[in-house]
Amino acid sequence: MIFTDHAQNALSLGEATLIKLFTQWLDTVNPVYPRGMGDDCAVIEKSPERLLLTTDTITYRKHFDDSVSAYDAGAKLIKRNVSDIAAMGGIPKQALLTLLCGPNTSIEWLKAFFDGIRETCLKYQIQLVGGDISSLDPNQFSAALTLTGDAPQGPKLRRTAGVHDHILVTGQLGGSRLGKHFKFDPRLPEGQWLASQDAVTAMMDLTDGLGKDLQELLPAKAAAALSLETIPIDSAAQTMSAQSGQPAIAHAFQDGEDYELLFTVEASGLDALLKNWEVAFPKTRISRIGQIVSGPNSALYLDATTGEALPWTRGYEHLSST
Amino acid sequence: MIFTDHAQNALSLGEATLIKLFTQWLDTVNPVYPRGMGDDCAVIEKSPERLLLTTDTITYRKHFDDSVSAYDAGAKLIKRNVSDIAAMGGIPKQALLTLLCGPNTSIEWLKAFFDGIRETCLKYQIQLVGGDISSLDPNQFSAALTLTGDAPQGPKLRRTAGVHDHILVTGQLGGSRLGKHFKFDPRLPEGQWLASQDAVTAMMDLTDGLGKDLQELLPAKAAAALSLETIPIDSAAQTMSAQSGQPAIAHAFQDGEDYELLFTVEASGLDALLKNWEVAFPKTRISRIGQIVSGPNSALYLDATTGEALPWTRGYEHLSST
Repeated sequence: MIFTDHAQNALSLGEATLIKLFTQWLDTVNPVYPRGMGDDCAVIEKSPERLLLTTDTITYRKHFDDSVSAYDAGAKLIKRNVSDIAAMGGIPKQALLTLLCGPNTSIEWLKAFFDGIRETCLKYQIQLVGGDISSLDPNQFSAALTLTGDAPQGPKLRRTAGVHDHILVTGQLGGSRLGKHFKFDPRLPEGQWLASQDAVTAMMDLTDGLGKDLQELLPAKAAAALSLETIPIDSAAQTMSAQSGQPAIAHAFQDGEDYELLFTVEASGLDALLKNWEVAFPKTRISRIGQIVSGPNSALYLDATTGEALPWTRGYEHLSST
Repeated sequence: MIFTDHAQNALSLGEATLIKLFTQWLDTVNPVYPRGMGDDCAVIEKSPERLLLTTDTITYRKHFDDSVSAYDAGAKLIKRNVSDIAAMGGIPKQALLTLLCGPNTSIEWLKAFFDGIRETCLKYQIQLVGGDISSLDPNQFSAALTLTGDAPQGPKLRRTAGVHDHILVTGQLGGSRLGKHFKFDPRLPEGQWLASQDAVTAMMDLTDGLGKDLQELLPAKAAAALSLETIPIDSAAQTMSAQSGQPAIAHAFQDGEDYELLFTVEASGLDALLKNWEVAFPKTRISRIGQIVSGPNSALYLDATTGEALPWTRGYEHLSST
């Protein structure tokens, strides 16, 4: 359990002891001073020509609950941010961690949370170089991570797609709440590879659901003509559908937290890209789901077969209190 | 008031509307896409050879309460981080803002909070290039800022002082809670100037109080011989003393949040540095308060006149619940 009334709670140890523990728990993920913690700022030598910066949080009862292990919560905090770096085609580098926790946060829970952070940082070769800790009211916990990245090529942006570009997506969509939103692997090598392809015109990661996120890739006064039968629906979305009574494709559009890559490709480069993808990532599914079309449409999404407007333009609203 | 039960509360507006408002409120402090908000990561072109990274939070009822204006709270969040960049002799550059707020956070309060952020970013030429927003339980509010900095010279670190180096401090210490901890100006030009001086061997900013922070500058098995009569005691520390019954010098050592620079200077370079300081910063007080001495002392701080051990080795404990 994250909070405790009787056993060791974290904040009673004091800031200095806590930071010492964090340093031990992080092991080699916390580089030796002055590259790591211990000064007013972290110092990064030979930073790249082009720097990526992103930040994301994980909050108790908003992003995870008692059914999720502390290890998985820590791992997810890192992976959410890595997915943002992947979406630009970058290479994750240094991280800063801010912990905001109630005085009754369990030290055992916190250790397991750091285990998830350490192992995931090791996997993606991230160094945790600093951070901050502050107290909240009892039974509150939130952690924010800032992650830097190199972008030796690209980066691929969101708002650079053109009319006639094809719309593609990695993996399968929907039903993330049945486990995928903790168990996913950010599409880091795929993102780096796509960033090196001239034919790729725009890219982002799917966090709020295809329905909400695809709007970000559409140029002004353009729409997406989607071939519904090509949208890769996760089996978890089928399971969700049986529970909710909504069609599985609605879950694929609206559930959010897919952490797949959504990107656009110039029509002239599509065949070569699909062929090269097969060689580079034989195990990662890729789907062409539609094309950007122009025209004074009131609808953002059209059925490519019938020309009818599609619903599902809304995604997951992170700030809703439900 | 920060929280509201009846008027407009922030989170009911939804994430997209809130981000639109933040962008308006930040005005030119939020650079035009893709350099600012709106993609998976912020992209920073031509980042420096050496990058500084720091992060600090401001939390309701921990760092500020209802007696503090929203504007001052927003300004302080920026200034706390600028002080860390100043302590390395750097130049502040880009910032990421993470907001964690209860659903009943007042939108009027939030606007004034952003006014403080915007004006302070403009003053220090900081660009706010991204961030995140997440909900907490009602009546909870915390904001975390990550700030980058260039360090064209230096940076000056904490753990590089030597025995016989003199110990100096800017400004006056103690009594910060009487207003200074919101009204301070980070010692940015002073920090940059000190970073350019070869005679300066180590530097940090005073956040937890001289008593706790000076320990960070001491080499192993060394102590600080302090001339108590030279310690610059703020008039606010005298006022605090009258209230607390403790001597004013105890407040100068232990109150914390002075945001002054504490640094060490090689003995051979002291006279020239003091002379050059007078020219560079005629209005900023500088005090030589002691010297680093070696010897197997059990005490960290010694009275330079009597050789006796000094108390006041503890500072402000940020995580205490009192």
